[in-house]
Amino acid sequence: MNDTAFEPFLRNAWYLGAWSEELSDGHLGRTIMNEPIVFFRGPDGKAAALEDRCCHRGAPLTHGQVVEAGIECGYHGLIFNGSGACVDIPGHDNIPPQTKVRSYPVVERQEFVWIWMGEAARADESKIIDFQFHDQPDKWPNKKGMIPIKSNYMMMIDNLMDLTHLGYVHAKTIGGNPRAHAKAEFDAMPTENGARFDRWMMDAAPPPTYKKAVGFEGNVDRWWDFEYVAPSSVLQWNGAIDVGKNARENQDQPGFHLRLFHSATPETEGSFHYFFSAANGYQQDDPEATEVLFGEIFPTFIEDKEIMEVQQARLELDPGRKLVAIPSDKALTHARQTIRRLVAEERAEMAQAAE
Amino acid sequence: MNDTAFEPFLRNAWYLGAWSEELSDGHLGRTIMNEPIVFFRGPDGKAAALEDRCCHRGAPLTHGQVVEAGIECGYHGLIFNGSGACVDIPGHDNIPPQTKVRSYPVVERQEFVWIWMGEAARADESKIIDFQFHDQPDKWPNKKGMIPIKSNYMMMIDNLMDLTHLGYVHAKTIGGNPRAHAKAEFDAMPTENGARFDRWMMDAAPPPTYKKAVGFEGNVDRWWDFEYVAPSSVLQWNGAIDVGKNARENQDQPGFHLRLFHSATPETEGSFHYFFSAANGYQQDDPEATEVLFGEIFPTFIEDKEIMEVQQARLELDPGRKLVAIPSDKALTHARQTIRRLVAEERAEMAQAAE
Amino acid sequence: MNDTAFEPFLRNAWYLGAWSEELSDGHLGRTIMNEPIVFFRGPDGKAAALEDRCCHRGAPLTHGQVVEAGIECGYHGLIFNGSGACVDIPGHDNIPPQTKVRSYPVVERQEFVWIWMGEAARADESKIIDFQFHDQPDKWPNKKGMIPIKSNYMMMIDNLMDLTHLGYVHAKTIGGNPRAHAKAEFDAMPTENGARFDRWMMDAAPPPTYKKAVGFEGNVDRWWDFEYVAPSSVLQWNGAIDVGKNARENQDQPGFHLRLFHSATPETEGSFHYFFSAANGYQQDDPEATEVLFGEIFPTFIEDKEIMEVQQARLELDPGRKLVAIPSDKALTHARQTIRRLVAEERAEMAQAAE
Repeated sequence: MNDTAFEPFLRNAWYLGAWSEELSDGHLGRTIMNEPIVFFRGPDGKAAALEDRCCHRGAPLTHGQVVEAGIECGYHGLIFNGSGACVDIPGHDNIPPQTKVRSYPVVERQEFVWIWMGEAARADESKIIDFQFHDQPDKWPNKKGMIPIKSNYMMMIDNLMDLTHLGYVHAKTIGGNPRAHAKAEFDAMPTENGARFDRWMMDAAPPPTYKKAVGFEGNVDRWWDFEYVAPSSVLQWNGAIDVGKNARENQDQPGFHLRLFHSATPETEGSFHYFFSAANGYQQDDPEATEVLFGEIFPTFIEDKEIMEVQQARLELDPGRKLVAIPSDKALTHARQTIRRLVAEERAEMAQAAE
Repeated sequence: MNDTAFEPFLRNAWYLGAWSEELSDGHLGRTIMNEPIVFFRGPDGKAAALEDRCCHRGAPLTHGQVVEAGIECGYHGLIFNGSGACVDIPGHDNIPPQTKVRSYPVVERQEFVWIWMGEAARADESKIIDFQFHDQPDKWPNKKGMIPIKSNYMMMIDNLMDLTHLGYVHAKTIGGNPRAHAKAEFDAMPTENGARFDRWMMDAAPPPTYKKAVGFEGNVDRWWDFEYVAPSSVLQWNGAIDVGKNARENQDQPGFHLRLFHSATPETEGSFHYFFSAANGYQQDDPEATEVLFGEIFPTFIEDKEIMEVQQARLELDPGRKLVAIPSDKALTHARQTIRRLVAEERAEMAQAAE
Repeated sequence: MNDTAFEPFLRNAWYLGAWSEELSDGHLGRTIMNEPIVFFRGPDGKAAALEDRCCHRGAPLTHGQVVEAGIECGYHGLIFNGSGACVDIPGHDNIPPQTKVRSYPVVERQEFVWIWMGEAARADESKIIDFQFHDQPDKWPNKKGMIPIKSNYMMMIDNLMDLTHLGYVHAKTIGGNPRAHAKAEFDAMPTENGARFDRWMMDAAPPPTYKKAVGFEGNVDRWWDFEYVAPSSVLQWNGAIDVGKNARENQDQPGFHLRLFHSATPETEGSFHYFFSAANGYQQDDPEATEVLFGEIFPTFIEDKEIMEVQQARLELDPGRKLVAIPSDKALTHARQTIRRLVAEERAEMAQAAE
């Protein structure tokens, strides 16, 4: 496949809009798929998302404040509740029914605030990713972050689905010898709604950080499991288990375990919000270990941001130009095929509905 | 009326181009309605306005300097007088007749430098606003300013013609309790070339600043008089007179008087120059009082700038989208109807002339 | 000729891409005629220029590093040699033949790195300017620089081919009295591939710097020789020789000699790289003299940059508008006619080839 770089948006899908902890303090403005949105909690504590634009004179609601009845516009004081209905116009008793702003379906679950960007009637909660590790803070203590990146969201999926970049982009941090992993076993495949790959290094010396974390005494079987879930999340599981314990058949045995959740929520065609959660599955009793983990991965995400942003700038000069595929693109090619199929299906449905 | 946010320019109209005091020191560059203009005084001291672009190689005249014969281009030294004629090409005796730049009709009066942006033949000085308070520095000492604002000029007219924003935008400065003014009597109406409203609070306690300024001992009748004069000026008169003196029939009696002149001269479709003059009609003998007045209103104009700029950014995402009217829009709706009528009339005339 | 300000690019031509000294340390990224280019030296030390975009996922090669075999992409480690062929894909033995990036013809000569921006098959080295003064560092010690300027490249040619700007743009540096040179003899003419002019001041007092540099005791004959060579270079020779030595017939006699090489390599339609070399032909044994010369001209180039950038901003408001010619435009008009003829010829050829 020699294909182009950018992908359009899938509309009827759940996107990660915010971490729950981001709504603890008032409201939060964030543009998703070119739409300015204000997230806030209503008086019932329920997360809500409205268009960040007062219907009266167009002022952004993020310029106002959260009050008891909802969010109050900072220009003339209109108040809207979590469903977007205007519940107060100062000085006036009658509220014209058209005084309302667009609301978005929102589901808060497992510390994620998911938002549905398509037709509200199609918002199906069963399609939300179940990331049960956030439900088990004792077993998987985590720390979360968000980095804005000026690049099409699929550049992030490319990045995560092809680890041959480690030795170059991350040469100064986690990269190591770019050719050392050549003997790893690699398998990539499409899934129903995405793609996945796993890499195994059998009977290998554990990295010093693994050894220090869990006290391996001999060689280990190591793996990298990455699953892309369309439109824009990647679930990563890194681990290692003592040689001879049939790690491939039973990956859940004690050993070294690290889970990362990545989500690239599109802001515009050329930018996205990179959300990540890093869950420590190896020294769960040590809060410092989770901080250290976060402190180690954060600089690598900044390295990814740098390369993706210069890559984006170059690709924008001629977005229709074909890229040249090489063998290590196998997993990202599956990911690209999935998102293209889903977008094509959605467009076909919309065309049919419009007839 | 549910209408859109932005208005086009009225071309055949006088606009406030500068305060007289801005021309005291050389020349001044300012873009009006997308046209770059250089204001300067010719050798006769008369204010002039030329296109800020040398006809020779296009250099901005603002990059040059005012000399005895006019304004000298900073690139090759051509000199243009106040009517735009080239009066000197260094080293050459013959000046080709096409060596000239566009000039604009200018009238300097009452400390305003008015500029006519349409057909020069239609420039009618009788249509200039007569703001006689600038003629009476003893009775109305004033201080002037200008703030650049990134917003369509009519956002400023909206802002001034609907004071319900005071309690929100100016909550930290002059706002007070947003619902306290609910009992004010409000009347709004169209005028021949604009719109006006007045608000009265009868038999009310004077605000501390009023009391301190003029020594009221009991309650007062207070008013807010705002008149929009198309295309882009608003004349404001705030005042208060002791109860029982028939203030509504005779507003010119001694008491507290404050006059503000506001003008939103368009720079581009999405920005304007906000000119303002604040005239102290209550402590005329105390220069410090005029400074204090200016110092109090200036921060409120910055608050207006902030809200108008975020409002503009939001509205620009979809300029054709309808706004939802609420009852407090009454005066601004009259203003909008006037400017739309005038623009429509001008366009009809131009279309007819083109036939 | 009343003509417009901007000129399109001539494609089949050599442009100055870099000074040789700029490639001494790794690689150099530079956009020329909207094309991002990476310059570097291959293992043979030969200068090369590739499109600054990896064919794999579009990352800029400038984000990578020069390695023994060529330039290595900083994303996934592909290596390209000076001809643009991929010579290594880490972890893979087979290199698909389409894995290559565009290369540009490059000639390094006389401390210039020339690049051909048109059809490679037409790149003819014999058309490169022969600036032999760079071959004679003892006779013409020089110092070089580059200033990025936001203006169409022909604004620079205009600037150099009309010295009447000296008294205005450079009033604070080298300008002197703008009307003092009126008695100079001036001659301008087209050349086969450009235009040239010379100005002579006969029997004039030498400027203090000339006098100090070469010890003139009486008056001199002074000249300014400027030759434009399309598309974007100007060769300047300033000099002075004692009166009575037939300077006009034999300019190469001992005296004061200064040669500047100027090149305005287009970056975009509205910006260029201003390369310059200043060669000291009067105090060749004193390295300090070359530094002093450079230190004197550098501020004047910044003055030129300032005026050209404000000029460009003004001209961009209406690029199709005609300029008004004056008599001092004679030499620049020849230059404009040449570049227009060459561009027209090139377009006619391309149209014919396309039939």
